[in-house]
Amino acid sequence: MIRKIPGGLTAPVGFLCGSSSSGIKNPKATRLDTALILSEVPCATAATFTTNLVKAAPVLISMEHLNSSKIRGVVLNSGNANACTGAPGKADARSMAAAAAQATGLKKEEFLVCSTGRIGVPMPMDRIAKGIAKVTLDRESSLRCAEAIMTSDTFAKEVSFSVKTAQGTFRIGGIAKGAGMIDPNMATMLCVVTTDAAIPQPTLRKVLKASVEHSFNRITIDGDMSTNDTVILLANGASQITPPLDIFQKALDLVNQTLAKMIVKDGEGVTKFVEIDLRGAASAKDARLAAEAIANSTLVKCAWAGGDPNWGRIMDAMGYCGARMVEEKTDIYYETLPVVKNGLVAKTPSAKVRAIAARHEFRIRIEMGLGKFSHIVWTTDLTEEYVRLNLGE
Amino acid sequence: MIRKIPGGLTAPVGFLCGSSSSGIKNPKATRLDTALILSEVPCATAATFTTNLVKAAPVLISMEHLNSSKIRGVVLNSGNANACTGAPGKADARSMAAAAAQATGLKKEEFLVCSTGRIGVPMPMDRIAKGIAKVTLDRESSLRCAEAIMTSDTFAKEVSFSVKTAQGTFRIGGIAKGAGMIDPNMATMLCVVTTDAAIPQPTLRKVLKASVEHSFNRITIDGDMSTNDTVILLANGASQITPPLDIFQKALDLVNQTLAKMIVKDGEGVTKFVEIDLRGAASAKDARLAAEAIANSTLVKCAWAGGDPNWGRIMDAMGYCGARMVEEKTDIYYETLPVVKNGLVAKTPSAKVRAIAARHEFRIRIEMGLGKFSHIVWTTDLTEEYVRLNLGE
Repeated sequence: MIRKIPGGLTAPVGFLCGSSSSGIKNPKATRLDTALILSEVPCATAATFTTNLVKAAPVLISMEHLNSSKIRGVVLNSGNANACTGAPGKADARSMAAAAAQATGLKKEEFLVCSTGRIGVPMPMDRIAKGIAKVTLDRESSLRCAEAIMTSDTFAKEVSFSVKTAQGTFRIGGIAKGAGMIDPNMATMLCVVTTDAAIPQPTLRKVLKASVEHSFNRITIDGDMSTNDTVILLANGASQITPPLDIFQKALDLVNQTLAKMIVKDGEGVTKFVEIDLRGAASAKDARLAAEAIANSTLVKCAWAGGDPNWGRIMDAMGYCGARMVEEKTDIYYETLPVVKNGLVAKTPSAKVRAIAARHEFRIRIEMGLGKFSHIVWTTDLTEEYVRLNLGE
Repeated sequence: MIRKIPGGLTAPVGFLCGSSSSGIKNPKATRLDTALILSEVPCATAATFTTNLVKAAPVLISMEHLNSSKIRGVVLNSGNANACTGAPGKADARSMAAAAAQATGLKKEEFLVCSTGRIGVPMPMDRIAKGIAKVTLDRESSLRCAEAIMTSDTFAKEVSFSVKTAQGTFRIGGIAKGAGMIDPNMATMLCVVTTDAAIPQPTLRKVLKASVEHSFNRITIDGDMSTNDTVILLANGASQITPPLDIFQKALDLVNQTLAKMIVKDGEGVTKFVEIDLRGAASAKDARLAAEAIANSTLVKCAWAGGDPNWGRIMDAMGYCGARMVEEKTDIYYETLPVVKNGLVAKTPSAKVRAIAARHEFRIRIEMGLGKFSHIVWTTDLTEEYVRLNLGE
């Protein structure tokens, strides 16, 4: 039985966290921008990182540490992505781990590092090191850590569950940040999940990979993909139980999907949350191509922003995406209402369909009629507000 | 010697054209929406069509006619794309050709058909047939034909040249329409080019294919690709000269590139025209992938709209596009000013770079440092106005 509980990162036994302001986001240091997460014992750890060839320094350093050491914690900052910063950037990411190690009496290799914010700007390392030093770790600060990693996010993202199994109860919780640049294969998206279940590291890797594929890799806001994306899963075994794998997978999926949907809903300038449920594709690749082409079409997204269930633009996107597609076999539904049947406009009164497209959340189901492959993505509209937020400095 | 001359479609000898209003765009029929182009003699004809799997009825009918007959002319309408309209749509496209044939005393197979406008709406065929019937053909109506095919275009697009060769002089001219949904591999983009040069049809096909690759396939506004895109080249041989092929290619490229750039500048909500000149890629495919990823990144385009030369977003797009890319080898220039050298921010004062990004037109040169392959694309910013224009009905 899975039950929602408070606590976020510290809902699982044996985890501590805390946050501070290093004055990265604003010089007066009134906004939280630094966070530290610690396990009382070494953790089995798994992580997935951006597939962008331009990888930020903290991603590279985290990969190093993950390969060389047992992990005890994560140090994070917002306001500066430490990306495209060359050798000094790598030294700065190492210094962040070193500052976390000094604050906790551990080794720097025991920390993973996450940064998010502006690209190509040197890190104010003196201030960040001082900010890390002044963090107080406790079991009540998860939501403030979620706040400390926000960039243009409008709310802190946190969730946690307790899971009762025949073997006993374990807990799992996490925080995330999203906002712009959200695309499958990760985005300016950070997520840290903690659990007190006892799972061996190789198993943990497989479970995380599968879960990310069905959560963070299913969301898309603007089709861009960032240099800093990271999902980290720390399992400290403090519950002393090893749950059946399918139950653990389900709990992790629930954490990741909950956080992923929060990220979509909090996308820059977003007014609509749309689920694209594409079915009947000729192959798994085709299903993904078609669902993502619809989700990323600027024309489709602009139509949604205007409350227009513009199926012509959906057909158009399916036609150019590279997937096999037969116009005459295609059906499109807004919720349960058919808008296209066999490639032609259906008889549903357009006012009814417009009423659905006017909602803040709706689902579009597409039947390609070519095979048995399906793909779901969660996406958003594209608004004038999005453009305004991204006009640059 | 190539010289710009007036006349557009009718600058070449032996072509006539005319336009009318069928009341497709507005019931009061005050706006031009119907056009007819005719050669006095049968033409060698080449055409390229959308690669979208969802092809509008006029595209399918034009393909049929091109395969079965010598072509004498083109009939066009705006306001309705006749796409996703099934069997009735195909009958309507045939009826348009038949109406053109009736108006000119020719056979319907001698006409190609182009439509642009809303998708999935039945054609008001009675009105269109009457509109075609009332067209008066003359040698002064090219610009009005260009106006008749406009949708959200803000100006009519026309150009023509006379070309003096050792063999004598020939003329070439064309009209086009663009606006939204502009992407390589064509878009809601129509173009008709006429020439009085005498070129055999198989040669004409090759020359047109090469020219489209270096003009209309190099432009991108919103990454969407329409169901109706068509480029038609009619050569009636009336000049009685067959120019050297390289000279004809150059003249055709000039016509197509001029029209292609007009389309980009007239993109929906566009305030900036940007040339991406990408060099040094490891392969031709990589060069195209990287240039197009930059040109289609919503984040990059929003930054330009704000006059922000945001190189971090450019690096990011290059990193996720799928092309081989080495951060440390990458240089980025705004015009001649380096903004990134070897993957790191260059020493150019940022005010100077911002002054370039504030211009209405600028060029970005990217050196990947990995090989000898290059690719140029012409693109635009993404503005709040674009979103407003595409909110739907």
